[in-house]
Amino acid sequence: MSGAVRQKPLIGTVAILGVGLIGASLGAAIKRAGVARRVIGAGRTRSNLDAAIAGGCIDEATTNERDAVVGADLVVLAAPVDASVGLLERIVAFLAPAAVLTDVGSVKRPACLAAARVGLAARFVGGHPMAGGTATGAVNADAELFQGKLTLLTPTVQTSESATTVVTTLWERCGARVRYVDADLHDRVVASVSHVPQFLSVCLAEMCATDPNAELLGDAAAGGFASVTRLAMSDPDMWLAIAAANTEPLGEAMEAFGRRWQELTRAVRAGDQTVLRLAMETARRFKESTGK
Amino acid sequence: MSGAVRQKPLIGTVAILGVGLIGASLGAAIKRAGVARRVIGAGRTRSNLDAAIAGGCIDEATTNERDAVVGADLVVLAAPVDASVGLLERIVAFLAPAAVLTDVGSVKRPACLAAARVGLAARFVGGHPMAGGTATGAVNADAELFQGKLTLLTPTVQTSESATTVVTTLWERCGARVRYVDADLHDRVVASVSHVPQFLSVCLAEMCATDPNAELLGDAAAGGFASVTRLAMSDPDMWLAIAAANTEPLGEAMEAFGRRWQELTRAVRAGDQTVLRLAMETARRFKESTGK
Repeated sequence: MSGAVRQKPLIGTVAILGVGLIGASLGAAIKRAGVARRVIGAGRTRSNLDAAIAGGCIDEATTNERDAVVGADLVVLAAPVDASVGLLERIVAFLAPAAVLTDVGSVKRPACLAAARVGLAARFVGGHPMAGGTATGAVNADAELFQGKLTLLTPTVQTSESATTVVTTLWERCGARVRYVDADLHDRVVASVSHVPQFLSVCLAEMCATDPNAELLGDAAAGGFASVTRLAMSDPDMWLAIAAANTEPLGEAMEAFGRRWQELTRAVRAGDQTVLRLAMETARRFKESTGK
Repeated sequence: MSGAVRQKPLIGTVAILGVGLIGASLGAAIKRAGVARRVIGAGRTRSNLDAAIAGGCIDEATTNERDAVVGADLVVLAAPVDASVGLLERIVAFLAPAAVLTDVGSVKRPACLAAARVGLAARFVGGHPMAGGTATGAVNADAELFQGKLTLLTPTVQTSESATTVVTTLWERCGARVRYVDADLHDRVVASVSHVPQFLSVCLAEMCATDPNAELLGDAAAGGFASVTRLAMSDPDMWLAIAAANTEPLGEAMEAFGRRWQELTRAVRAGDQTVLRLAMETARRFKESTGK
């Protein structure tokens, strides 16, 4: 392959296993930044693979993940969280000896453990781009999706430095900022800032949906309701898999939220303006200081 | 006053007591639609009154609410929820005999009771435009704020038909859709679709703010967190007043949410995909069917 690229390609061939919103967007970002010479996408749905090619997210498509990884220098697992572990087991025998692996899943401990179990501890770098949306599929891919966003990587003491460097550079060239974090800590952090918000959205919308006055509630709901329940439009299958993969940290974070909620409820009942004001001011300062 | 207006003015003089975001936006909408010949705004802060005049929200300003209501055909209470009841008591002796009154507060039972207590049951029509935002003050006023939005009105059996007609027409000419609802039911409905979301936003942001890993949480927080916690930027004083005015319905709705949350938490812990999927699908269908 000739053709001028803006920077020297970091990698020869990248195989992306799963070309949904994240996988296809990463492919598009890789191709645009000239990070790899060739991007192969593997997936089960032909129409989605066609959309990925048509959208310039991948150069080649296959429905056979083994064909995709043979000869790949970097393998990105971008299937749903519950599929990635099985995927690792199925492809391990077909990997090039020096291939580096990473993933993009929302839960990191199971993926890192699975990589170690199949003997890939040195070459697997867990990854999680803090980007996404309620839209799904290659048809919604966006090469800008990771621009200015954080990607958390979870290398362990067993991970080789060169593998970490490859994956770090990949994300940085795709516009992301990289931060390293322990996989267990990662799973607790995302439970609080990503998974709990998801289920809060669902819980509120479901509570209103099953209210005897649901029609009136739906009519009266305005911008605040829409904003808090926006995530309830997300893909149920993806979130069932995340909940199953992050049971312990998510359960703990949900219980912590439940305790906090009880305290606020008691404060409302008791008219305790001190507790309510402190909560509101603490919440507001956090949002102001983080810009989130 | 001469000057052509698009429709025959419905009202001679409107007095708006409190020219914050809602009061000033209503003034702007009234003036633009030519609903009244004259709009007087009353408030405590001179700079805010100046902004309301400069923004074309009111024709005249005063810091004395009694001066504002003398001769007014329609009086709109647009002060914070906790101020409106006292305001009613202070102005009642200065009202024109045929003046109609309404308010824009987020809680309706206390306002309706207060109106009845001071002998205004026939002339007071409780109102609540389902519009707003985290921005405050006349400087953020928007004549379009109510366009296409719902305004809930809570006339009682004691309310005169002509008062209800005046207030209904006012809102409709300002672009809103009007729906009548019992004040008690209103307060339960908004507890679920507006007040609970507000405190969920606060509770989540406060939980993350006080986490030992708050800095990392703030860094990792992405679009989902931002959306669910958007309301945590709202004015604490306004929400303390709403919580105090709607204690019983809000407490009940918060407890109902807490029970629902416990069920979801148990389902996550138990890996009960049936319960989780049903909740996610019910939530999503509600959002799809209501468009909220």
